[in-house]
Amino acid sequence: MNTYIEQNKERFLEELFELLRIPSVSTDSKYRGDLRNAAQFLADKLTAAGADNVELCETPGNPIVYGEKMVDPSKPTVLVYGHYDVQPADPLELWDTPPFEPEIRNDKIYARGACDDKGQMYMHVKAFETMMETGNLDCNVKFMLEGEEEIGSVHLTDFVINNKEKLAADVILISDTGMIANDTPSITVGLRGLAYMEVEVTGPNRDLHSGLYGGAVKNPINALTEMIATLIDDKGHITVKGFYDNVQEVSAEDREAMAKAPFSQERYNNSIGIPAAVGEEGYSTVERQTIRPTLDVNGIWGGYIGEGAKTVIASKAYAKISMRLVPGQSSDEISKKFAEHFMSIAPEGVTVKVTPHHGGEPVVIPTDSKAYIAASKAYTDTFGKEPIPMRGGGSIPIVAMFKDQLGLDSIMMGFGLDSDAIHSPNEHFGVFNYMKGIETIPLFYKYFGE
Amino acid sequence: MNTYIEQNKERFLEELFELLRIPSVSTDSKYRGDLRNAAQFLADKLTAAGADNVELCETPGNPIVYGEKMVDPSKPTVLVYGHYDVQPADPLELWDTPPFEPEIRNDKIYARGACDDKGQMYMHVKAFETMMETGNLDCNVKFMLEGEEEIGSVHLTDFVINNKEKLAADVILISDTGMIANDTPSITVGLRGLAYMEVEVTGPNRDLHSGLYGGAVKNPINALTEMIATLIDDKGHITVKGFYDNVQEVSAEDREAMAKAPFSQERYNNSIGIPAAVGEEGYSTVERQTIRPTLDVNGIWGGYIGEGAKTVIASKAYAKISMRLVPGQSSDEISKKFAEHFMSIAPEGVTVKVTPHHGGEPVVIPTDSKAYIAASKAYTDTFGKEPIPMRGGGSIPIVAMFKDQLGLDSIMMGFGLDSDAIHSPNEHFGVFNYMKGIETIPLFYKYFGE
Repeated sequence: MNTYIEQNKERFLEELFELLRIPSVSTDSKYRGDLRNAAQFLADKLTAAGADNVELCETPGNPIVYGEKMVDPSKPTVLVYGHYDVQPADPLELWDTPPFEPEIRNDKIYARGACDDKGQMYMHVKAFETMMETGNLDCNVKFMLEGEEEIGSVHLTDFVINNKEKLAADVILISDTGMIANDTPSITVGLRGLAYMEVEVTGPNRDLHSGLYGGAVKNPINALTEMIATLIDDKGHITVKGFYDNVQEVSAEDREAMAKAPFSQERYNNSIGIPAAVGEEGYSTVERQTIRPTLDVNGIWGGYIGEGAKTVIASKAYAKISMRLVPGQSSDEISKKFAEHFMSIAPEGVTVKVTPHHGGEPVVIPTDSKAYIAASKAYTDTFGKEPIPMRGGGSIPIVAMFKDQLGLDSIMMGFGLDSDAIHSPNEHFGVFNYMKGIETIPLFYKYFGE
Repeated sequence: MNTYIEQNKERFLEELFELLRIPSVSTDSKYRGDLRNAAQFLADKLTAAGADNVELCETPGNPIVYGEKMVDPSKPTVLVYGHYDVQPADPLELWDTPPFEPEIRNDKIYARGACDDKGQMYMHVKAFETMMETGNLDCNVKFMLEGEEEIGSVHLTDFVINNKEKLAADVILISDTGMIANDTPSITVGLRGLAYMEVEVTGPNRDLHSGLYGGAVKNPINALTEMIATLIDDKGHITVKGFYDNVQEVSAEDREAMAKAPFSQERYNNSIGIPAAVGEEGYSTVERQTIRPTLDVNGIWGGYIGEGAKTVIASKAYAKISMRLVPGQSSDEISKKFAEHFMSIAPEGVTVKVTPHHGGEPVVIPTDSKAYIAASKAYTDTFGKEPIPMRGGGSIPIVAMFKDQLGLDSIMMGFGLDSDAIHSPNEHFGVFNYMKGIETIPLFYKYFGE
């Protein structure tokens, strides 16, 4: 198969570029048409590769691309999940090249979605083509590619519930995570959940002159900062009432195992240009971003933010605040606790509104399953090293949902790197990683099919 | 003169409307041409009213309109100051009618600048016309109308320093403040100063995925909120080191006198729709907004502030923070103290930059001067009530500058109301107040000329 992959490398890259040129930003309604174009592009490629029953499954939002190849009912079935929507590209001025005009620089593909998730998702389409063309498809396969992952997969749950038969499989295969380094493969066996809130603080019923009223009126921006400041104490603990009630602590053994993964605090700090890493007392950087829950303000705004100076007391102030959750916590539970807590700390003189956005549940994947072992073997073959089982800090809410609705575990074969700047300006994906993915995936089918 | 004013009321209003239609927003460079048009409009009207040596005095910024009428060297000279620039009109969606399409509703003129300061400044132009047409100009008069007051009168000081002879006068007359109520005239005898800062907090060198990095990196928005939250303690005191060192406390007598002015906390709260008035412990609402210094966040921004949810840790967070100052404090002193203090409270993991915007000095005006007494008599004639001497909460930095450079006190004959919503959407100015101003101003000239 490697010969076929080598021979078609240029085309595999060109096709990905074509997909990356489509600005399929799901959070902004004005890109609705582009999302459909991306879906159609994928449907066409699946058909061309030999998939059957390819269709755009309509939802109230963006379509879900489905396709399948049933080679032998006695063989296990792999359900491939991926998403073709991407995060917004702003702040645009920080991109070295336009986000939707992919370009290769020092062997990396630069574009919004290069890694998350168009690049990693398209590896599966090309791996499927490779297996078909070389007669090596050792499992039945089904594709389910959605266009709303970045906005919480709002319509995927209904689709899954209504198509359980169609989606029946033995395992779910996803490439939407990362690995430790190109010479240190790893497989994600845990993900954090997410609770995402928007808060609004209202003071006076209109903007006021800060000279005439300053000092006598509670300023909603000051109020918002006071409230947010109390959400994390000086030990890095989150103060939301009951926040840690159900957290499953990770065993000392597992923490020791995690500590074995190569990690340089200095390289970490330099890679993102921070003077020092700061977080919850008593935990390492890796632990803080994988096995511990967090609270971050993702956006804040209020008052005059234009050029120059305006002496105004704003009527309203806003913030987007999200919490990463670990096993034991649930998105609904934490969203409720946050809302109650945040309302309860509103100072005199202002009113507060809290609105939850989408959320997701945390998950842990067993490392002794046939699927995990097959994935581990596949990496060992292509990287010459056994992959390290690793907890991921991000959230793929649907992994928990698949477990609930379909009773299936997900194998997360991620080929991205933390340094790929996903969700940031200059997002990129290594050509090495893209090709390695296309090589490794067929081996998973081989071992899982045995 | 009242007959003349009555007969020309409609034209006086139409001319003001013409001026209000010019979007002379000084903080935004794209309105540069409109500012010049507003200046030319005023020059033409002064000339038409009979002023001599009318000119647009060029500055590196917007021109200063000058004009004069010297009737008799033995008479005192009044130097009229006003400004034709206005605050930005945003947020536009909160205006009931477009900010630059003036309209009268229930006897109020609605438009940006209707009160601050086009309406109040133009009263002087029409009062001058009235005195000229009816042969009642009892003082020499000079006009100095600038177009940069809302951005800190950046070029006025140089103009004053370079034109001391030309601007020689006995008193400065300004209408850029308010009065207590239409049935309770008052004269502003004190103003607060201003120190206006912009702060920038930097964490990582790029936006990060809040899942991959959340918990291990100091979030600059969280850091900014923590820093701002500590600037005011739970008693409403400002914690900036040395902030109160030079504050001149107001005597118990003066506070008693102030307390005599009619004030309804309930009407105040209702007029701006706040559940409760909050401020420095031990002071009344009126005191908090006039004789006490303040700290307010005028704007804050950082991270993702668009539609929907984006799971990002921003690289930078920003805020505009201003402080109102009282006699004894100076803008430079407080700006320095704020910068030092704010840098000193930066938490580990972020870097902080502080940039001062324009400032202004606080002032107090004697109530036993010939000019104050003349103004008091004028109000008494037209309102049938002696005006109450009142401290204002706002800042007119140039009043202190005039005292320094020209050695002149300013008489602040303000006819606006706190409810006029200056600097806010739906700014307005009562037709009653506009006409009352035009009636009252000539009487000041009469008594001051005696």
